Amino acid sequence: MDRVYKKIELVGISSKSFEDAVTHAIEKASKTLHGLAWFEVVEQHGRIADGKIAEFQAVIRVAFKLDD
Amino acid sequence: MDRVYKKIELVGISSKSFEDAVTHAIEKASKTLHGLAWFEVVEQHGRIADGKIAEFQAVIRVAFKLDD
Amino acid sequence: MDRVYKKIELVGISSKSFEDAVTHAIEKASKTLHGLAWFEVVEQHGRIADGKIAEFQAVIRVAFKLDD
Amino acid sequence: MDRVYKKIELVGISSKSFEDAVTHAIEKASKTLHGLAWFEVVEQHGRIADGKIAEFQAVIRVAFKLDD
Amino acid sequence: MDRVYKKIELVGISSKSFEDAVTHAIEKASKTLHGLAWFEVVEQHGRIADGKIAEFQAVIRVAFKLDD
Amino acid sequence: MDRVYKKIELVGISSKSFEDAVTHAIEKASKTLHGLAWFEVVEQHGRIADGKIAEFQAVIRVAFKLDD
Amino acid sequence: MDRVYKKIELVGISSKSFEDAVTHAIEKASKTLHGLAWFEVVEQHGRIADGKIAEFQAVIRVAFKLDD
Amino acid sequence: MDRVYKKIELVGISSKSFEDAVTHAIEKASKTLHGLAWFEVVEQHGRIADGKIAEFQAVIRVAFKLDD
Amino acid sequence: MDRVYKKIELVGISSKSFEDAVTHAIEKASKTLHGLAWFEVVEQHGRIADGKIAEFQAVIRVAFKLDD
Amino acid sequence: MDRVYKKIELVGISSKSFEDAVTHAIEKASKTLHGLAWFEVVEQHGRIADGKIAEFQAVIRVAFKLDD
Amino acid sequence: MDRVYKKIELVGISSKSFEDAVTHAIEKASKTLHGLAWFEVVEQHGRIADGKIAEFQAVIRVAFKLDD
Amino acid sequence: MDRVYKKIELVGISSKSFEDAVTHAIEKASKTLHGLAWFEVVEQHGRIADGKIAEFQAVIRVAFKLDD
Repeated sequence: MDRVYKKIELVGISSKSFEDAVTHAIEKASKTLHGLAWFEVVEQHGRIADGKIAEFQAVIRVAFKLDD
Repeated sequence: MDRVYKKIELVGISSKSFEDAVTHAIEKASKTLHGLAWFEVVEQHGRIADGKIAEFQAVIRVAFKLDD
Repeated sequence: MDRVYKKIELVGISSKSFEDAVTHAIEKASKTLHGLAWFEVVEQHGRIADGKIAEFQAVIRVAFKLDD
Repeated sequence: MDRVYKKIELVGISSKSFEDAVTHAIEKASKTLHGLAWFEVVEQHGRIADGKIAEFQAVIRVAFKLDD
Repeated sequence: MDRVYKKIELVGISSKSFEDAVTHAIEKASKTLHGLAWFEVVEQHGRIADGKIAEFQAVIRVAFKLDD
Repeated sequence: MDRVYKKIELVGISSKSFEDAVTHAIEKASKTLHGLAWFEVVEQHGRIADGKIAEFQAVIRVAFKLDD
Repeated sequence: MDRVYKKIELVGISSKSFEDAVTHAIEKASKTLHGLAWFEVVEQHGRIADGKIAEFQAVIRVAFKLDD
Repeated sequence: MDRVYKKIELVGISSKSFEDAVTHAIEKASKTLHGLAWFEVVEQHGRIADGKIAEFQAVIRVAFKLDD
Repeated sequence: MDRVYKKIELVGISSKSFEDAVTHAIEKASKTLHGLAWFEVVEQHGRIADGKIAEFQAVIRVAFKLDD
Repeated sequence: MDRVYKKIELVGISSKSFEDAVTHAIEKASKTLHGLAWFEVVEQHGRIADGKIAEFQAVIRVAFKLDD
Repeated sequence: MDRVYKKIELVGISSKSFEDAVTHAIEKASKTLHGLAWFEVVEQHGRIADGKIAEFQAVIRVAFKLDD
Repeated sequence: MDRVYKKIELVGISSKSFEDAVTHAIEKASKTLHGLAWFEVVEQHGRIADGKIAEFQAVIRVAFKLDD
């Protein structure tokens, strides 16, 4: 039953919303890593251009199981 | 005018979004407690399955007024 | 290339969602400040009335470039 | 000698002072709980009206012994 | 699938070890609450008497599922 | 109902007490700003002279409503 | 002009108020240390007995100048 | 003498104890990385089943030297 | 002797060093504000281009005395 | 009843376990200080050698009563 | 426009200065990673030998763009 | 191999730079303490006079080995 997970920190960037930024980062991670298990939102910020939100930036930690 | 509030910590879980998870937890609390006054988002995390977000988990604190 | 930004702290309040609260605060800031460059979400909380979320409150920091 | 305490979070509100707000919350708790043992001040804030402090708000944690 | 957990804060005290203090608090909670799901260690401290550790004190948060 | 508040950070200094320092800072702010709504105590420190407290220094954040 | 201060951590305990607890700790320090320059309030908690505050406990850091 | 270390974040899970969880994660890391130099405990939590601790989970950061 | 300071948050950016970034921000502030009294370094980060540090960014808080 | 405690910060190092490291530091302190009253665990880290834990390092704060 | 960055944590060590330690870590990272975009200073500490600073240690996070 | 370190908190003040302030504090400590082993930068702030940095103030913790 004992097992080990590794957590990596990603910054997802989306022009739509914070949840899209989170989703985007997890999709990216799932292309090269299998066994993704959970994520944690660490920070939420963004870029402004012409007085409007141009980018939503979500810093997340993603955990995945290391092979036995 | 003096009064006292109590804060409790809840974890709402939703398959849709963080705001749905927050809403879900507050609805649950409102079934047994009256006088809910405000909430604070403490943490946002979630579960991943098959490389996609399977659950949005929102840890919140909810405050309600204690009866005089 | 050297330059200086100033960060101010705003609390946006919306009846719709946290992202609407953030957007609302940035629009307000852009009416009197030019050169808005980025924002950071500091806190997310809200008011409850009749057991439902009545207000989404987003505390953000907004940075803008100071004129040379 | 082994024993267990529970901590709850309260917000005392007073028109007089922070210490009155703390006292107020502890008195309230002592009406329904016995075995109160200690408290911790977590936050101090307040409401302003007409340019003056209208309310002192003290967020505290109060610990009480669970019966054996 | 949507569900809500509540987290409570306990202080377990043991004369043996921190893990015994944690275990002690969880056993206490399980006597009156069902559906305990996870715990988090928040602080570790203790009392000293005659130059030796007399008590191990573990502050934990325990989460349990609220009934549907 | 949507609205925006701005928070500024002040350091009130008093020879009497922390609450006098807080009051002092809010009075100062109310001379040039209208719509002051709430304050938060961020830090409490002070200066010592001749082995006695010479100054109470309270760092607070004060929020006020921006005009529509 | 260069100089060095040392900061020590004290816990003042008073049956009257937090400010009395702070004052008490600084007076104690000033009996054995000269050159006390400033203090910072780190935590505020207390002991409860019979449903009332029995002790105000203020954790402070006190800085004093080291001799040249 | 100049050198660079990299820190990674792991979550060790054990059915026995927190220290076993830490050990487990370090052993896992040492299978694919050489030059492990130190570790830091970041969080301690666990899963509860049937009112008992079913899993000890230790979040640690492990540092290892990058080759010159 | 009672007085009030205001603290503002600035981000100084320099191609040379962190201390140059701090200096730069303070010089900028001193052009429009008098009575600058102290500063605090809050964050240090920077931009990288072509594998080298292109910008040093220092987030600081600067305090200045409000007129009596 | 009023009294003052001083807190000092120690790092205990043991080849056996974190609790041994804590015990070791308290024993050391008790050789030169009397009136030790409580301790708080601040950090837990350690040294790794040959892929195994070589040292458990516990940073603790220890409080002792100052003489009246 | 959507994209994802990864952040890794490095500890640069230099006998000269903190900025040299930061530079050293970024140079190391740029040898195996392309697309380095920004860095954040997380901690600054060092080793002392014979009463003098023998090593400056800078813990930084470095972000780089993941390929599309 | 078991041993104990003590950490003390110092504030070094220099008219030149933060690193000079750190160096200054460590030199001071090394005059009365032997076995200094490492230091940690806790805060960086300073005094401003006439719109320029008049003092760099570095708060550090210094650890030294206690005799066996």
